[in-house]
Amino acid sequence: MIRVLIGSRNGAEVEALLDDAPPEAEVAFLPEGEKQADYLSGVKVLFGRLSESEFDAADALKWVQQPHAGAEGHLYEKFKNSDIVLTNAGGLFGPQIAEHAFALLLALTRQIHTQLAFMKRKHWERVPCLELAGMTMGIIGLGGIGLAIADRAKAFEFRVLAVDPEDMDCPDTVDQLEKMAYLPELMAQSHVVMSCCPSTPETHKMISRDLFDRLMPGSFFINVSRGKVVDEEAMIAALRSGKLAGIGLDVTYTEPCPEDSPLWTEPNVILTSHSAGSSQHIRRRAMARFVDNLHRYVQGEALLNVVDKEKGY
Amino acid sequence: MIRVLIGSRNGAEVEALLDDAPPEAEVAFLPEGEKQADYLSGVKVLFGRLSESEFDAADALKWVQQPHAGAEGHLYEKFKNSDIVLTNAGGLFGPQIAEHAFALLLALTRQIHTQLAFMKRKHWERVPCLELAGMTMGIIGLGGIGLAIADRAKAFEFRVLAVDPEDMDCPDTVDQLEKMAYLPELMAQSHVVMSCCPSTPETHKMISRDLFDRLMPGSFFINVSRGKVVDEEAMIAALRSGKLAGIGLDVTYTEPCPEDSPLWTEPNVILTSHSAGSSQHIRRRAMARFVDNLHRYVQGEALLNVVDKEKGY
Repeated sequence: MIRVLIGSRNGAEVEALLDDAPPEAEVAFLPEGEKQADYLSGVKVLFGRLSESEFDAADALKWVQQPHAGAEGHLYEKFKNSDIVLTNAGGLFGPQIAEHAFALLLALTRQIHTQLAFMKRKHWERVPCLELAGMTMGIIGLGGIGLAIADRAKAFEFRVLAVDPEDMDCPDTVDQLEKMAYLPELMAQSHVVMSCCPSTPETHKMISRDLFDRLMPGSFFINVSRGKVVDEEAMIAALRSGKLAGIGLDVTYTEPCPEDSPLWTEPNVILTSHSAGSSQHIRRRAMARFVDNLHRYVQGEALLNVVDKEKGY
Repeated sequence: MIRVLIGSRNGAEVEALLDDAPPEAEVAFLPEGEKQADYLSGVKVLFGRLSESEFDAADALKWVQQPHAGAEGHLYEKFKNSDIVLTNAGGLFGPQIAEHAFALLLALTRQIHTQLAFMKRKHWERVPCLELAGMTMGIIGLGGIGLAIADRAKAFEFRVLAVDPEDMDCPDTVDQLEKMAYLPELMAQSHVVMSCCPSTPETHKMISRDLFDRLMPGSFFINVSRGKVVDEEAMIAALRSGKLAGIGLDVTYTEPCPEDSPLWTEPNVILTSHSAGSSQHIRRRAMARFVDNLHRYVQGEALLNVVDKEKGY
């Protein structure tokens, strides 16, 4: 038997998916209010997150399936140096995060934030809006989320540029795909920049003052990936100088966004609370992925979405 | 010579397009602050709007080119019964109005309105959002705007239904196109209903209580065409009963929206001020259309976007 621990409860409907788990899996749930470390001994497979303080209690652990994207919570040295395999829910977040990115962008260009303020005082006034069709969008990171954004951007009649470090074919909905060295040029050409790259040592504050300086005046910057990839001071300076006409952020460098951050009050900033991944489908989808991977694990097949612990994604 | 009057000023850059007008056209501009009626005598072509009170002054008028879509301002009896041809700017509004429709919809499903309220008190809280991918969108009226919405909806992974009274081929981005008799079934199947139909005697309060009653609980209604096509009381009742989870309106039955309308204060209503047509490109585009039509007029060719004064669109 393979002992499997489910680290958090997901409701009866989602957990019913575990009925299709392979018979070799002996599935247990962490009881509510209990400490995960007390239930890890002998567990081979964890659905959830293994924090650094719990690492030593995981005496038999072979594989952790994260129910979310990214890998930040598992990039501590002990875990990275261990043989424990990490898989994440990458690829399951494309549609809703792309929808969120467009919600932020369109709210800025169609003045939804201004009109909502008008509504408070029952004020009817047409405010000039910007049409996106014909503009250029630059996508930083063409993973599942970047691709889902590209598909929608093409239908919105954007010219779509993208940069990504990986080798891949240029998808139909991307006009030009380049390696990361092209990023300064992408910034210079894009009316809208979408940050969709993971947080890794390489991407820390990667979107720097130099890059913001390259923007055309009146551009838009949307971040639906991780706040740590942006030099936040430089981004705010770009807004104040007019390089940026608007900023839509689902993530900030420090979360929750600190009370003294200008992002709360600066005009033409829309801040949502790391909710781009939210969807009525995501728990079901993440559990289905886990059950799929459990079958692969039992059969000795390659797991889906294995994280490269060195690259961090 | 063909005397042409331009009823409103559009800025030097846009008016420079008139340099390409045919030499037979003698173009004059209505001086600022003057009454249009005093300048209509002998005018054959008007770029603008001929109101009912000005009608008798238009002693030589053959053709009016509206710089906007619709036809409401020209549907009075004297004009309808005259031989004056009416053309409008139909087909020039697709991209920006489709963007506006998605701005309203995505603001509701991604809780932008809730998060903007949180920002006022520097409050960071993830609010559950709805994913649109996989839902069904019903488009009422598949003209230029409906089509632009359908193209974007398909990329957002909607199943797309549409109804329209005209005979046309079903476009690639529409899964099912039906005549107007299908409207009750469209309401019953759609998680998102987009109103894109013109205001005519036939469409007056067409989206009625009976139709709102057909909705599934938790649906969304977006209106980017005309407020007069909706029974507004029935729409508000549908919101209060939970049939509608959110309403996004660029238009209201009476505009500006009256101060005592519940639309200003009802939760999950987003109201913009008839600005969906706004775009940095629209004046240029409307003038270019007019110049194109002027050439056709001089050559005796069929004009683009002639309004059927009986149908009203």
